[in-house]
This record gives sequence, structure tokens and C-alpha cells, in this order.
Amino acid sequence: MYPVISISREFGSGGHSIGEKVAKELDIPFLDGEIVTKTAEESGYAKELIEEQGETASAANKWFDISAASAMYFQSPQDEIFLAQRKVILDAAKKGPCVIVGRCSDYILRNAEIPCLNILIHADMPHRITRVLERYGDITNVDVRKRIQKKDKQRRTYYRYYTDQQWGAYQNYDLALDSGMLGEDTCVHLICELASKIDKENS
Amino acid sequence: MYPVISISREFGSGGHSIGEKVAKELDIPFLDGEIVTKTAEESGYAKELIEEQGETASAANKWFDISAASAMYFQSPQDEIFLAQRKVILDAAKKGPCVIVGRCSDYILRNAEIPCLNILIHADMPHRITRVLERYGDITNVDVRKRIQKKDKQRRTYYRYYTDQQWGAYQNYDLALDSGMLGEDTCVHLICELASKIDKENS
Repeated sequence: MYPVISISREFGSGGHSIGEKVAKELDIPFLDGEIVTKTAEESGYAKELIEEQGETASAANKWFDISAASAMYFQSPQDEIFLAQRKVILDAAKKGPCVIVGRCSDYILRNAEIPCLNILIHADMPHRITRVLERYGDITNVDVRKRIQKKDKQRRTYYRYYTDQQWGAYQNYDLALDSGMLGEDTCVHLICELASKIDKENS
Repeated sequence: MYPVISISREFGSGGHSIGEKVAKELDIPFLDGEIVTKTAEESGYAKELIEEQGETASAANKWFDISAASAMYFQSPQDEIFLAQRKVILDAAKKGPCVIVGRCSDYILRNAEIPCLNILIHADMPHRITRVLERYGDITNVDVRKRIQKKDKQRRTYYRYYTDQQWGAYQNYDLALDSGMLGEDTCVHLICELASKIDKENS
């Protein structure tokens, strides 16, 4: 059986697209939009809010400004979204092999002791800038480099808040790939190669 | 043509052995003892000293205690060894494909803009303890976990001193592998797979 695959990625590194291709190649579910839909059902919050706050600590979200101590006394909407999303991720992983992108899924699955292949996708800034411009265009009028750095920072803050760990620490990944140097197809190939090996060992 | 392959590794992760097998499989030189011999010739220092101080900042080595500012006024034996070793690594890499383990080779080659496949091998503590006991036995009577942590620390201090960078930052590696989870043979396989791909693209 293929493993559950969790993909953590830097913004603009192509991790999402790599995950999608891996899922297609292995013919297993790719969980992205579905997580948002199900988390909305689970939590009662709007999909738009979950899309915005289900992975990043945005400036608009004041919950990350309060101390952990005061946070213990009540549950913020962000916490409720995290917990609902956590449940959706665990339910999906328990069902069988799938690819899950981001959302602290590496930590959530490890913590629940669900066997999982943990992948990190990263790339240097020039590669990421090219990719973001190709994919989104310069839609925000914000300098693209700054946009990438901001998105990374928001995700890292979110990850740190809910896992108490540093995002990107190599110890947390079975495989970390530089998609800028290796190219998207090589990353897909190496991940599928590994998943197939685990599949053979399991059967 | 195969790339030059630099392998950084945690102590006890099997990185040395993986590097050796990769070199054998690709039929390219594996540089380890040879670096020590040539650095001895280049620097005039004894091989034993180079083995001990060519990669680790040991407690016995007082040079790491002095500030960078005072270090600017003279060259320590450790600095002379580093520079001689750097020259040996660069000469070897310029000659053609090879596997080099540790010794800041990832930084040295990147800094000299010599194309290089940068690999990180790591494993969790239980796997490393098992491996160190199998390989070296409990020869020092020092608690094995402490020995591993000390060795890692010495290498990290050495790396930080000469590169001004944090050892293990994922951005520095094209591929990072958890040898404890993946197993040694899978690591060898993935690295060779990647080297062969680069070989094909180059030709």
C-alpha cells in the first residue's frame, strides 16, 4: 500500500503542483480544496475564512498576538479552524493513501502516530519569483519577493504557534528536495519512486 | 558526466557508508582518507592532527575559543589545515566527478561556484545509537548518546566558524534524506538515480 504523503513547501516552490502530480501518478486522492470544504462543514466557518486562516498567521489575525497563557482560557476562531482541519486531515489519512499539502499535516500525522512519508519542497528565491510571476502574474502590485517572504513568514508563524516547532527543520522530513535545482518532474519522480518502494515493502 | 557529490551527514547516520556505496556504484572516486593524506602533504601537519581537527572543533582546540577579531591577526594551525584541505577539495572537484564527505565541502564548492550535488544524510537518535554501537562498539565508555551529541556539536561549531552559516539549514541541500526511515540502500539508490539523471542531461 502507498503511504500517506505529507508535502510541506515554501511559497512558490511548486510543492502544490508536485503534490498534485504525485497523487495523479500514484492514483491516490490529492487533498487540498476538499480539506477546506470539509473543515467548513466541521467548524461552521466560511470557506473563505478557512482558505485565508487555515495555514497562515495573517496580520489581520490578532489571535497570534496574544500570549499562549491568555490563549489557554478560551478558544479563538483560528483554534477552532485548526482543530476542525486537524480532524479532517486525520480522518482522510485513516481512510488510506493520499497526498496532503501543508496545514501542519506533517506534525499532525506524526503526533497521531499515523505512518506518513514527510516531504519538504524548497527552492531558491530566483526560481520562486519566476514561478510566482508565471502562476499568479503581478496581481497585487506588491513586490513579488516581499510577497513570497511575507507568505513564508505567515506560514512559519502559524506552524510555530500550533506545533511549537521550527518549520523546515530537516529532522522533520524523510526527504527534502530543492525543486529549483532538481526541477519539478525529478521531484515527482523521486517521491513516486519512494512511495512505490514503500508500497512493495508493505505488500 | 556525473556531478561532484558532496555529502553532509549527522554522526552515526551512515552518511560515510552511503557515500562510499554511491561512489562504488557510479564508479567514481570516493574521497576520504585521500583528503587527509593530501592535506598532510599540503600543510605539513601530521595526518593524525588533520583527522582530529580537519572537521571538528574539539575541546582540546583552543583556537575556537578566541574571538574572530583577534583571529584576524594571525593564522592558527586549524586555519592552515582548513585552507590546505580546501585546496585539496577544490583540486579534486576540478578533476572530475567524485564523492566528498563532510569537511565543509558543500560550502567550499558552492562558494567556488563549482557545480555540485549537495546531499544531507540524517537519522533519528535511536537509529544513530544502534548504528554507532554496531560500528564502533562502546569503545569509549562514554554514553553513546552523549558521544553522538558531542560529535555533532563539534562539527557544527567547525562549520559555523568557517562558513558563517548554520549546519543543516535545508536551503543548502539539493536532497536531504532520513537514512533511519528510508534505509541505507534506498538513500544510495535515490542519490545514484539523481546523479544518473544529471549525467544524461549533461551529455
